[in-house]
Amino acid sequence: MTDTKDPLVIFTPSGKRGRFPAGTPVLTAARQLGVDLDSVCGGRGICSKCQITPSFGDFPKHGVTVSEDALSEWNKVEQRYDDKRGLKPGRRLGCQATVQGDIVIDVPPESQVHRQVVRKAASARVVEMDPATRLFYIEVQEPDMHEPTGDLERVAQALQAQWHIEGVTADFSVLRDLQKTLRKGDWKITVALFKADDNPPRITAAWPGLHEGGLYGLAIDLGSTTVAAHLTNLETGEVVGSSGIMNPQIRFGEDLMSRVSYVMMNPGGEVEMTRAVREALDTLAMELAREAEIAPSSILECVFVCNPVMHHLLLGIDPVELGQAPFALATSESLSLSAADLDLSSLPASAQVYVLPCIAGHVGADAAAVALSEEPGKSDDLALIVDVGTNAEILLGDSTRVLACSSPTGPAFEGAQISSGQRAAPGAIEAIRIDPVTKEPRFRVIGCDKWSDEDGFWAETAQTGITGICGSGIIEAVAEMRIAGLLDAKGLIGSAEQTGTARSVPEGRTHAYLIHDGSADDGPRITVTQGDIRAIQLAKSALYAGARLLMDERDVDKVDRVVLAGAFGAHISPLHAMVLGMIPDVPLDKVTSAGNAAGTGARIALCNVEARREIERVVREITKVETAIEPKFQEHFVNANAIPHATDPFPELAQITSLPDVNFNTGGGESEGGGRRRRRRG
Amino acid sequence: MTDTKDPLVIFTPSGKRGRFPAGTPVLTAARQLGVDLDSVCGGRGICSKCQITPSFGDFPKHGVTVSEDALSEWNKVEQRYDDKRGLKPGRRLGCQATVQGDIVIDVPPESQVHRQVVRKAASARVVEMDPATRLFYIEVQEPDMHEPTGDLERVAQALQAQWHIEGVTADFSVLRDLQKTLRKGDWKITVALFKADDNPPRITAAWPGLHEGGLYGLAIDLGSTTVAAHLTNLETGEVVGSSGIMNPQIRFGEDLMSRVSYVMMNPGGEVEMTRAVREALDTLAMELAREAEIAPSSILECVFVCNPVMHHLLLGIDPVELGQAPFALATSESLSLSAADLDLSSLPASAQVYVLPCIAGHVGADAAAVALSEEPGKSDDLALIVDVGTNAEILLGDSTRVLACSSPTGPAFEGAQISSGQRAAPGAIEAIRIDPVTKEPRFRVIGCDKWSDEDGFWAETAQTGITGICGSGIIEAVAEMRIAGLLDAKGLIGSAEQTGTARSVPEGRTHAYLIHDGSADDGPRITVTQGDIRAIQLAKSALYAGARLLMDERDVDKVDRVVLAGAFGAHISPLHAMVLGMIPDVPLDKVTSAGNAAGTGARIALCNVEARREIERVVREITKVETAIEPKFQEHFVNANAIPHATDPFPELAQITSLPDVNFNTGGGESEGGGRRRRRRG
Repeated sequence: MTDTKDPLVIFTPSGKRGRFPAGTPVLTAARQLGVDLDSVCGGRGICSKCQITPSFGDFPKHGVTVSEDALSEWNKVEQRYDDKRGLKPGRRLGCQATVQGDIVIDVPPESQVHRQVVRKAASARVVEMDPATRLFYIEVQEPDMHEPTGDLERVAQALQAQWHIEGVTADFSVLRDLQKTLRKGDWKITVALFKADDNPPRITAAWPGLHEGGLYGLAIDLGSTTVAAHLTNLETGEVVGSSGIMNPQIRFGEDLMSRVSYVMMNPGGEVEMTRAVREALDTLAMELAREAEIAPSSILECVFVCNPVMHHLLLGIDPVELGQAPFALATSESLSLSAADLDLSSLPASAQVYVLPCIAGHVGADAAAVALSEEPGKSDDLALIVDVGTNAEILLGDSTRVLACSSPTGPAFEGAQISSGQRAAPGAIEAIRIDPVTKEPRFRVIGCDKWSDEDGFWAETAQTGITGICGSGIIEAVAEMRIAGLLDAKGLIGSAEQTGTARSVPEGRTHAYLIHDGSADDGPRITVTQGDIRAIQLAKSALYAGARLLMDERDVDKVDRVVLAGAFGAHISPLHAMVLGMIPDVPLDKVTSAGNAAGTGARIALCNVEARREIERVVREITKVETAIEPKFQEHFVNANAIPHATDPFPELAQITSLPDVNFNTGGGESEGGGRRRRRRG
Repeated sequence: MTDTKDPLVIFTPSGKRGRFPAGTPVLTAARQLGVDLDSVCGGRGICSKCQITPSFGDFPKHGVTVSEDALSEWNKVEQRYDDKRGLKPGRRLGCQATVQGDIVIDVPPESQVHRQVVRKAASARVVEMDPATRLFYIEVQEPDMHEPTGDLERVAQALQAQWHIEGVTADFSVLRDLQKTLRKGDWKITVALFKADDNPPRITAAWPGLHEGGLYGLAIDLGSTTVAAHLTNLETGEVVGSSGIMNPQIRFGEDLMSRVSYVMMNPGGEVEMTRAVREALDTLAMELAREAEIAPSSILECVFVCNPVMHHLLLGIDPVELGQAPFALATSESLSLSAADLDLSSLPASAQVYVLPCIAGHVGADAAAVALSEEPGKSDDLALIVDVGTNAEILLGDSTRVLACSSPTGPAFEGAQISSGQRAAPGAIEAIRIDPVTKEPRFRVIGCDKWSDEDGFWAETAQTGITGICGSGIIEAVAEMRIAGLLDAKGLIGSAEQTGTARSVPEGRTHAYLIHDGSADDGPRITVTQGDIRAIQLAKSALYAGARLLMDERDVDKVDRVVLAGAFGAHISPLHAMVLGMIPDVPLDKVTSAGNAAGTGARIALCNVEARREIERVVREITKVETAIEPKFQEHFVNANAIPHATDPFPELAQITSLPDVNFNTGGGESEGGGRRRRRRG
């Protein structure tokens, strides 16, 4: 059909080239060459997805000169589209413009099906768009009494004939309304096709005519405390809205273990909790759709990441087995469900739900999502990835092997079980510095950019007040207290006499450090008590011991870099984390924050179906380490109790000063009750 | 492992034989030889499904002599089972008895997985048991913190290791309770595995320990008027209960067309009708389970056959398209769903539902089921199969080709729209003979075996009375009236004067034949009116024209045999049907009744998964003929109006007498209103 005299068509950025007879539509040429040029309507000039930019002039690199008439003239279809929607200057519709001479054609990113989406976050992992669901516009043959096939069978025939897609089935809920949709669209419809695995492609939605309402998915990070969702355009990868709400299960128990206990005490209580979280998900989805001004019926995919207890409670599975050894999951593998299975009434019943696999009984789909986002298994250097939350999920690995464990840090890092602790909210102290000489603190609160010793701070915070200390604040406070010599290596707070500051105040048989006394203004008196120090010591020891256990397993003494993940991880000061001994010693510039890596992992799995197969494979290959049964964990835990702990040299601290060599132990003064508090999961 | 000195093991009835080392369990030998010997527990001596009967003595046919010690001695496991449940004399458990010498072993039918079930009905189609769902007992590895797989993954491993079944998945509803089931059964469970197609085998139920509650399925014939269900043991094929109830949709319209009209008048009305029929199905399933004393949770499969309108209304699909040309089905292919999809709350949500394919917009899954049961495509001679109901579904075929159509007979054959018509119920006249000389009738009513001229008839029917005429009764009445010369070939009833009997009474401008006057006892006056004759003429002409159209399509003038299907078909007298001209002329002994062939087809699809693939293939290959668009249909219809009609020679009638050559047309006396009534589908 083609010969050497035919026009040469060169596509960029792919570089694919071929000769086509004059008159060949650009879209046809692109398809024949396997160029990634989008089209929902299959070249009928109505979807405008196949926009391309022709280039004219000399292209010595490609060895062609493109004349102005290398493409057919602007036609009526293009004019109509331009009048109606506007076409960017220089753009043409690939299905309308035909090749007339040698031509160089650029496919802009937004016209590529498999366009790459670069995350905004620092570590720029590129995600290629390859969603499980795509839209296809088809023209369906009308029914005929001589050929009494069903409407669905003729839809399948159209997909076969017009898109070469074989063996299509339809979700039962779609089948119910298919006849009306076909007739409303005068036998032209747009279908959403879901194809994620070896099962036949399935129609999960159908609209009359060309569906212009877009195609969306939700990436949901279902946390114990908050539920965060990102509404994502599945055609462009763009996040069109993000929102978070409190997990309503909090009323059944603040932490996971108390929710498991609730079920133990109230058999069947998981039903209430499941209903509560599903209702919250519906609320969240509806809000996001409303704010983004899209129809919820266009949300056809949902990806969930969550810890194992939330995983079971989302699915309606009694979580009691996760509350006791051997912490058996009902299933560890990924799940592919429908919105109807989860009673998510805000979404179409046929919307597809993918739940990432769990790594182990304590290391959930959220940790799997972190692994998907941060890819330790593709790292050349040895990376320690810590997702800090109520439980810390810890990944250690490089391209040779990845290990994972979970460590029961408790909720102290989130400001819970801290005397002046609170959630990260306006009014909470999030950063603090203590003058090593005067022992006076200065701090910053959420909602105000100024430090407390800067002009205007008090005026600006008058509204919220100073209400407490959040997780990042308490870490800095404890580390700063140690740096300022208010705290000795064992974690004892010195008395006013020992520290030389009246901010060291008696608190029972121990002492507390007074950060701010708002009682004159009816505000709280914010202190760091000896109990708070012990809670933080327990938490950081657990975190460190978990990391250390994985390092033992890998037979290494140090890691090359540390990644702090989790919303909270994003706010931890690496320096203070190291002073505290939360994480093993690495150069400060080797500590990075991955932000909400679990949420990012969810988005990746939402936008790229191959990423689902990848994380399923990765999770199967991860070496799971169970902290609860490793005797070395307890040993590391005890050794890590000091600030900084005894097992690590700490050269990085030289850049501050060496830590004061103080010892406030008066021989039995402190009640150790707080320090021996039973650690709990959850 | 085996040598020629090893004992020879011969299985009957298969004849399979092989040598096995002494000590080999009989079950193991059977499995290695591929002998069909059942086992749910996998040889653990607890399910007792592997019972065998050893034979001893000389077997010249097999060339062996079996000594009394050719099997190991009766062991404790067998003794325990015999004490508890009783083992038939001569029986052994195949997993306990081991081979010690040459032996002949019979596998009784009840120990065969693929046992053959012979239908009770006359045409003894043998069905091999090969249900989509089977039970497997497994011992599952307990969870271990060192190997943090999920419980489901360990169940899948057990199925792989113990039954060589790969890639098992679980229904979401099973996953929810799996952990409790495993622990309750102390890691020994029975699972029901569903495997019907290329999808991976799926667990649809799990019970702790060995499940002894059986495995059941429902074969459901969902008719416009009645819903009939057969509760079938999926291990044995035995029907353990059958029951029928009225289709509650009757309150929305007696016939299908009026139900379609109801939806046209009340958009969304299909929702009410769908709910009504599903509730009825739940009631029926619960009743059947209660009567059979089985747990509804053991009912794991459901097969539906129904006409296209009922098909759509069962599925919740608006049926309006089926009420108007081109009669487009939403889908014509078979459907595999779950009980949850149909909101059948009496069954486990995971129970699998199979709906047979529809042949065309008027020829439903019920006709497909008739094709599956009667197998016209495997017939050597040309068979005409007629399922007589409100619509007649007609199949014509032999091994070369099968054709199908539907003919709008209307409800006259079911006693509806007949002046004294009623459903087949006690008190209804179901058979009638008219003396050709005296013109006096004698009849039989449902609920009494005697004819009305026999002693005791009136005493025995005093309770019910004589309430009306049912379908088979009206057919006989019209045919007998014709034979007795009360009716001419055009279908006109003669006056008393013309016929010489006072039973010919005036009825408006026409005449009626008085069968029974119960008015003295406050009973009805039962007559056959001219309108009734016209209704029957319309119905029989439609039926005949449909059959004739298929014969045209096959280019034949006669068929080799006729099969009357449908509950009503079972009661039609072939002779009278031929006098009436309902069916083409064949020798009387070539007219058989297939009983409820649609229900039988449903049972076959329930018990044999391969039969589902077979009927899907058969339906695709059937030539569909649409009566509504074939001009010849109208022609045949008009020609078939006479009794018997003009187009057929009728040699068979010679065995009665020739039909009286009467002509009662008085030139315009009869109102033709009744005869030109618009035929309707439904």
